[in-house]
Amino acid sequence: MIKAGIIGSTGYAGAELARLLMGHPEASVVWYGSRSYVGEEYASIYRNMFRFVDDKCLDDNMEELAGEADVIFTATPQGFCASMVNEEMLKKTKIVDLSADFRIKDVAVYEKWYGIEHKSPQYLPEAVYGLCEINREDVKKARLVANPGCYTTCSILTLYPLVKEGLVDPATIIIDAKSGTSGAGRGAKVPNLFCEVNESIKAYGVASHRHTPEIEEQLGYACGRQVVLSFTPHLVPMNRGILATAYASLTGTPSYKEVKEVYEAYYGNEYFIRLLPEGVYPETRWVEGSNFLDIGFKVDERTGRIIAIGAIDNLVKGAAGQAVQNMNLLFGLPENTGLTQAPMFP
Amino acid sequence: MIKAGIIGSTGYAGAELARLLMGHPEASVVWYGSRSYVGEEYASIYRNMFRFVDDKCLDDNMEELAGEADVIFTATPQGFCASMVNEEMLKKTKIVDLSADFRIKDVAVYEKWYGIEHKSPQYLPEAVYGLCEINREDVKKARLVANPGCYTTCSILTLYPLVKEGLVDPATIIIDAKSGTSGAGRGAKVPNLFCEVNESIKAYGVASHRHTPEIEEQLGYACGRQVVLSFTPHLVPMNRGILATAYASLTGTPSYKEVKEVYEAYYGNEYFIRLLPEGVYPETRWVEGSNFLDIGFKVDERTGRIIAIGAIDNLVKGAAGQAVQNMNLLFGLPENTGLTQAPMFP
Amino acid sequence: MIKAGIIGSTGYAGAELARLLMGHPEASVVWYGSRSYVGEEYASIYRNMFRFVDDKCLDDNMEELAGEADVIFTATPQGFCASMVNEEMLKKTKIVDLSADFRIKDVAVYEKWYGIEHKSPQYLPEAVYGLCEINREDVKKARLVANPGCYTTCSILTLYPLVKEGLVDPATIIIDAKSGTSGAGRGAKVPNLFCEVNESIKAYGVASHRHTPEIEEQLGYACGRQVVLSFTPHLVPMNRGILATAYASLTGTPSYKEVKEVYEAYYGNEYFIRLLPEGVYPETRWVEGSNFLDIGFKVDERTGRIIAIGAIDNLVKGAAGQAVQNMNLLFGLPENTGLTQAPMFP
Amino acid sequence: MIKAGIIGSTGYAGAELARLLMGHPEASVVWYGSRSYVGEEYASIYRNMFRFVDDKCLDDNMEELAGEADVIFTATPQGFCASMVNEEMLKKTKIVDLSADFRIKDVAVYEKWYGIEHKSPQYLPEAVYGLCEINREDVKKARLVANPGCYTTCSILTLYPLVKEGLVDPATIIIDAKSGTSGAGRGAKVPNLFCEVNESIKAYGVASHRHTPEIEEQLGYACGRQVVLSFTPHLVPMNRGILATAYASLTGTPSYKEVKEVYEAYYGNEYFIRLLPEGVYPETRWVEGSNFLDIGFKVDERTGRIIAIGAIDNLVKGAAGQAVQNMNLLFGLPENTGLTQAPMFP
Repeated sequence: MIKAGIIGSTGYAGAELARLLMGHPEASVVWYGSRSYVGEEYASIYRNMFRFVDDKCLDDNMEELAGEADVIFTATPQGFCASMVNEEMLKKTKIVDLSADFRIKDVAVYEKWYGIEHKSPQYLPEAVYGLCEINREDVKKARLVANPGCYTTCSILTLYPLVKEGLVDPATIIIDAKSGTSGAGRGAKVPNLFCEVNESIKAYGVASHRHTPEIEEQLGYACGRQVVLSFTPHLVPMNRGILATAYASLTGTPSYKEVKEVYEAYYGNEYFIRLLPEGVYPETRWVEGSNFLDIGFKVDERTGRIIAIGAIDNLVKGAAGQAVQNMNLLFGLPENTGLTQAPMFP
Repeated sequence: MIKAGIIGSTGYAGAELARLLMGHPEASVVWYGSRSYVGEEYASIYRNMFRFVDDKCLDDNMEELAGEADVIFTATPQGFCASMVNEEMLKKTKIVDLSADFRIKDVAVYEKWYGIEHKSPQYLPEAVYGLCEINREDVKKARLVANPGCYTTCSILTLYPLVKEGLVDPATIIIDAKSGTSGAGRGAKVPNLFCEVNESIKAYGVASHRHTPEIEEQLGYACGRQVVLSFTPHLVPMNRGILATAYASLTGTPSYKEVKEVYEAYYGNEYFIRLLPEGVYPETRWVEGSNFLDIGFKVDERTGRIIAIGAIDNLVKGAAGQAVQNMNLLFGLPENTGLTQAPMFP
Repeated sequence: MIKAGIIGSTGYAGAELARLLMGHPEASVVWYGSRSYVGEEYASIYRNMFRFVDDKCLDDNMEELAGEADVIFTATPQGFCASMVNEEMLKKTKIVDLSADFRIKDVAVYEKWYGIEHKSPQYLPEAVYGLCEINREDVKKARLVANPGCYTTCSILTLYPLVKEGLVDPATIIIDAKSGTSGAGRGAKVPNLFCEVNESIKAYGVASHRHTPEIEEQLGYACGRQVVLSFTPHLVPMNRGILATAYASLTGTPSYKEVKEVYEAYYGNEYFIRLLPEGVYPETRWVEGSNFLDIGFKVDERTGRIIAIGAIDNLVKGAAGQAVQNMNLLFGLPENTGLTQAPMFP
Repeated sequence: MIKAGIIGSTGYAGAELARLLMGHPEASVVWYGSRSYVGEEYASIYRNMFRFVDDKCLDDNMEELAGEADVIFTATPQGFCASMVNEEMLKKTKIVDLSADFRIKDVAVYEKWYGIEHKSPQYLPEAVYGLCEINREDVKKARLVANPGCYTTCSILTLYPLVKEGLVDPATIIIDAKSGTSGAGRGAKVPNLFCEVNESIKAYGVASHRHTPEIEEQLGYACGRQVVLSFTPHLVPMNRGILATAYASLTGTPSYKEVKEVYEAYYGNEYFIRLLPEGVYPETRWVEGSNFLDIGFKVDERTGRIIAIGAIDNLVKGAAGQAVQNMNLLFGLPENTGLTQAPMFP
């Protein structure tokens, strides 16, 4: 039984981790860490967990936790994990960091987009970007996994085969993404109040969202050169789900079938990626509660563009589910252990 | 492996059955019945099931299905199951009927409230009302189980110990219930369109809803005399969930603690009933996706009333989950087999 | 032109006042008061008002405002208005208080339910409870109007003719009310976040909500004796609207028509009360954005009860609209001036 | 008083017309046309209009109506208006067609994208595309106005100054649009049910939506050459609102200020277009219930693109409000008559 600790277990991503690990046959949570609710019963904060969790919230003492857990998940604000991690800790335990601290290899890029100093850049080289479908083998050997962001997971995987195979011109990529409100976290802020979000849609972080350099870096690896793209997130009045609508100019004139074959070559055997039939496009409702990424696309001869669309549950494949997927790889378990639930609808 | 057939698998309750049975370790679905979608791929109608179900929809030939399945679930309009069931069928297979056909023992009451003729009243005596927490032993021996309604499950179980123990005067019971929109089914009707339901709440079936006699009958058994009560359902702009707020005058002046002890005596060992701590009341979000019923209550000395509140997921404990619970009892499995998921939030 | 000042103009009720007064032909706002946003442009906080309001937010200096405004609306937390009002102020200006400070005549009841000391009980006798349909003549002569609460407006007006005419036994009244989330205000609190409210319904303030004594007091005046009743509010995932489902035992056996005649006698000439046809019940969507109260009811012979249902827009008839209605009375304008918009649907 | 008739008054756009005309000081509705509800009271279908409209629904006899009305609004399915209009009718009355029949000048393009034969192409030359901010003078003289589509109004006006002034390369335009569900109409279809739309977002009509050629035609007029662009609509779980996020490569390197000046030159005096301050982007909630278009944009030096975002209420500026705006022009009234309401929030 893998002993798992969660730092930041009372945020939405941390709570989803708690829920998923509750159903995981090979892991159990030994530490429900929280900054705001230390000493309170976990099930009094997330009452869905009533009768599932009897524990009280502990603090975020990652040092101590490292001695008790086989793996630590840090579902914490940017900067926390980087300020804590050290060699002693990594000798005792694995770390899956759900923040952005170790996602971007270039510390200057990180510091520019996130506006904070990186406290442990020495671990950037060894940290593995935990997008399992692409970096599976590296994850297996890692001590420190940088769990990808929600928008980035959906955007990168949707575009990866196209960019890698040179089917599209990377300079023309535009990603218009839409997210449910759980992506904004559980902080008490006016813009996230029900009446502010409900019955509206808006763009935010226009040409400045922090997930942009993460997407650019990973797609840059795919095509072997620097990628600069447009990324616009939008807030949708729903709890869960991300839809990424990606546009790019095709370099040639492939048919739908030819592009589909490329996708099949990359993802045909991936458990968590579902390639939809022609003419069918992803909808977030069809992946809710699951670790799946659904992909559909259109080759648009009129414009010479491809429109590739991906959908995930931002809290699962975009956060906690992917973290469990990474944990499974770290501990030699089948990658989908504890993650085989069908999506829930409606 | 229990072979299960679902007649009406493309309605919301039927689809939830398909999803729950997909995760059930001892059962598999051998027949996805449908009236509207015969011949179409099930996963093209419920795309959440893509890659989980490869089957096409079959018709609603219950005769033929009886020869192939160990259990048939009828998630069908009122009247269908009663018009089909016969002795030969019951010799071959078990039936769990999710419609109202066999819930009400008095055929005249059924025909009055439902406005249709009952086609097989001869099976009313043997049909077991499948509210497992109350009729567990009878269900185990049944051939034909009448799976309770969504409102009724929530209402009856919330009030049962109070009525059974004489803590309240049954003549004063008022149940004000609120349901998510999936309870209205997947029929294409103007009143169920997004824009008609969203941003509104309304009462419907005022003093005339069909679940009224079902609640009255069962609570009547509890107290040993006829019960007449007020029941008002409301439509809430959300997908899932039922909240029943029940009011009744107390016969004595029990303390909170004394009433809680009564609830504990009845439900303390029930896996699917969670009695909340004092001062905490159910919210539908805390049971979403699960088979739990959460109960909280207030002893109001000012008015001499008790306000007892219950919450369930109408598609799970109110329909498909309870049907699986009944199936587990019918086949001698632990009652919570396949039903141990924690509720999903948010 | 009536010069109006709003203290608390950046809360939801205050903002609705600003919007309604913008469309009022005889009034204009001279003071957008705020505690949180002093010095900021009002239209940067409520961007719907962009190009309608150029003013910056001012502080809550009610003394100064009294010298500039013909009427002051206090859309402020409990206790504020009572702590500010004085004789000098009332000589200069009229006050419509949207808080609870002057709604309850018995200071002990106020202090018990609200848990704060009343700072100016000397004005309780002269303050007029601004439920225009009932206290119209008194409002016209008032200096200080206590604008009723949202739940109370809906509950009292729905039940008033029944109680006043002795059609129901007041001791049996149960009000089960449901409100949109704007009623919870614009404070940044976790329970009001989108993901906490969306896809759920809950009761709150069970047998302890502060609107209870306000309803009891007013219905007590109607029947000439003390009324004790059950009132349970619920939070609904929608922005606006209150639905009150009220139950009471009939003292006799009136027909629907007889009860309807009573309602007609009281409300037949009221502009803002719409008595629905038989068999039709209120839905909050039909009053959204308007100052209307819709009423429908059922005489239930089975139980001997009447179920009377009312619906309002909590921000309009439940707050800002009623405040404008009171202002119109105070200044001798037709009562519906600026309030004749049809409800907006969908 | 302008006598107005509405064919299709029981759809959402027709009902919004009825609501807006109710508040219009110079117009009144003399004909509530409907195909589905002939003979029924209008207020029984749209109960928000209870006590505002006493009329019963009439049929869609446009011939007869032409003799009674000064202006006819056809809020009808594609093909209806084209099949009815004739010279005699146009001699008696003005027509504002809310369908697509007269929006596209090239009948072959119309027939290709809409898949139906055009029954009166002879009126295409004289029909005026009723985008008032661009074709104001032509509208004033028209007999037949083609009221623009909802997506197209928002998309064209947001991009028009950029395209007209050559600031962007038209070949690079990508419009990612999001709409509330009222845009899908009031037809009883499974995909528009509450549970199907709620808690999800999806793209539809990918590279094939019928508003594409309409946008291309109008932007083509602006730049004097053929425009081919990508347009992707999305369905958002909210009632009202359209947000169009438009991307295009800049031809030069203008500053934000320079682009803003271009927008100001075109729209600075437009009552219904609100140019937001730098760094502020439109949100549909800020225009709800109003005829405003809010525009904000970002000059993104990293990518050499501009991201221009527009928001409207699809039922007002995207349909009924714009139709009233056109009526005002047709009858020589101030363009904003009856359309000066502030948006309603929340």
